[in-house]
Amino acid sequence: MMQSYTRRTEEYLSLIEKELDRLIPGGGCLQGRVMEAMRYSASNGGKRVRPILTLEFARLCGLEARAALPFACAVEMIHTYSLIHDDLPCMDNDDMRRGKPACHIKFGEDTALLAGDGLLTLAFEVMLREYDPKAISPRSAIAAAALLASNAGVEGMIGGQVIDLMAEGKAIDIETLRTMDRLKTGALIDAACRMGCVISGASREQLEAAGSYASALGLAFQIVDDILDVTGSTEELGKPVGSDAENQKSTYVSLLGLDACRDAVRRLTDHAVRALQHFEGDTGYLAELAEALATRKN
Amino acid sequence: MMQSYTRRTEEYLSLIEKELDRLIPGGGCLQGRVMEAMRYSASNGGKRVRPILTLEFARLCGLEARAALPFACAVEMIHTYSLIHDDLPCMDNDDMRRGKPACHIKFGEDTALLAGDGLLTLAFEVMLREYDPKAISPRSAIAAAALLASNAGVEGMIGGQVIDLMAEGKAIDIETLRTMDRLKTGALIDAACRMGCVISGASREQLEAAGSYASALGLAFQIVDDILDVTGSTEELGKPVGSDAENQKSTYVSLLGLDACRDAVRRLTDHAVRALQHFEGDTGYLAELAEALATRKN
Repeated sequence: MMQSYTRRTEEYLSLIEKELDRLIPGGGCLQGRVMEAMRYSASNGGKRVRPILTLEFARLCGLEARAALPFACAVEMIHTYSLIHDDLPCMDNDDMRRGKPACHIKFGEDTALLAGDGLLTLAFEVMLREYDPKAISPRSAIAAAALLASNAGVEGMIGGQVIDLMAEGKAIDIETLRTMDRLKTGALIDAACRMGCVISGASREQLEAAGSYASALGLAFQIVDDILDVTGSTEELGKPVGSDAENQKSTYVSLLGLDACRDAVRRLTDHAVRALQHFEGDTGYLAELAEALATRKN
Repeated sequence: MMQSYTRRTEEYLSLIEKELDRLIPGGGCLQGRVMEAMRYSASNGGKRVRPILTLEFARLCGLEARAALPFACAVEMIHTYSLIHDDLPCMDNDDMRRGKPACHIKFGEDTALLAGDGLLTLAFEVMLREYDPKAISPRSAIAAAALLASNAGVEGMIGGQVIDLMAEGKAIDIETLRTMDRLKTGALIDAACRMGCVISGASREQLEAAGSYASALGLAFQIVDDILDVTGSTEELGKPVGSDAENQKSTYVSLLGLDACRDAVRRLTDHAVRALQHFEGDTGYLAELAEALATRKN
């Protein structure tokens, strides 16, 4: 891995963590408890793939990271809210998230519900209040926020969760699995990449290329998840392996087999990297990111 | 009541119902179930006070109702989502809403949770995608959507719900009750009124006057609710009376007494009407609306 890749990732992570910390101040007032719950979940960060994608696509299209930050944080807030609501007893009923108690275990179901609502609402407030009109036109800000809203909504991420609920305990075919993931995971990754372009005034061709990169990356990401559930170690993953098989969940591995899945990840990653040809700037970072996600161990 | 008041209310109601119907199409696709749940709750309309306020303040400031409609529908969607989440078992655990089964009783908790998330997300999508840039500047659209986001968020409506949760089963003082209502009910009424002004390019003075009207109206509305719970009939209210006393809930009536409450409603309504002097156009409709809410029987 290039040293510059690691360094830039660290810079991005530092920017994102600091900004989330500033935007979700927590404590102090009567309603402080829900803010604390929002902070708890937002700071229990994973890879921060989505906000990094927004920052890097913006940079590639000529906008400095700082100006893209409200949009990057918004997509991460929406991702975080979806995990909080997904973990609730009436949904997946998961007690743990990334090795720590889920939000509703730590704060109670009522507070977790409101913390999710709060993060979803704050995502829009942040984009609309914090964008810098000297760097981003109001029309572009509106277009980016509208894109995130539609990709996070019923035709996007929420739609994927509905399909997931309906599929629970049932065998599903590869087409349904594909649609579910395209919505549940893919829609937000797509918004992350394309928002970076929209706020930078990128061309229509570049916007489409960002969409191609996102859709290949998103699907590869999901297939790698399924592969790791079979081949990974509990230690590396930080969660029990084999849970998909145990729950008789239809996965890419159960439907296509391990070899076909590995081939697909290779093919999709190459496809993602090829889509970057439509950009003139240095696309090395995004190519490395795609490779890193394809070969990750957790 | 003036005939023109009734006629204009009917016109507004018809506009709002038709637009909500168009914006939440329902059925047909894999994720159709959650859209159906969104429609179910959004069409089980109450008085539609909030969207009517947005349309009328916009009209008063010179914008035609059609242009204000996306913002009116957005505030109603946010009100509806808050009711769906409020009724959930982990919150107030209410089985009935306006004489019909609550969303989670009809569709299940998981679908109701997602329907609430979907309406909250759709509210922003609608404002950002459906506003007419020929009638409303992009900057005004952003300001209005940002206003709704902050008033609906943790510093606004959600904050009020948190205080409500913490107060459950406890006696609270008048200050806490006032803060809770100012956030839980008042913040969205404030957004409804002020958004109407913001999208019409109203002056700062008018914006402040709309805020005064909203805050007096919102508090009077809540006090009337408490009075009706004591003096109303189950038949008129469509829900059991005396439930506040039974639940040992602190209300304006239990803290101040009936007479003081009636005085306060009178005073607040007069205050709301006086705030309208800052507008040049015909404020008769908004004055009648304040009177109608003060003297309502349900």
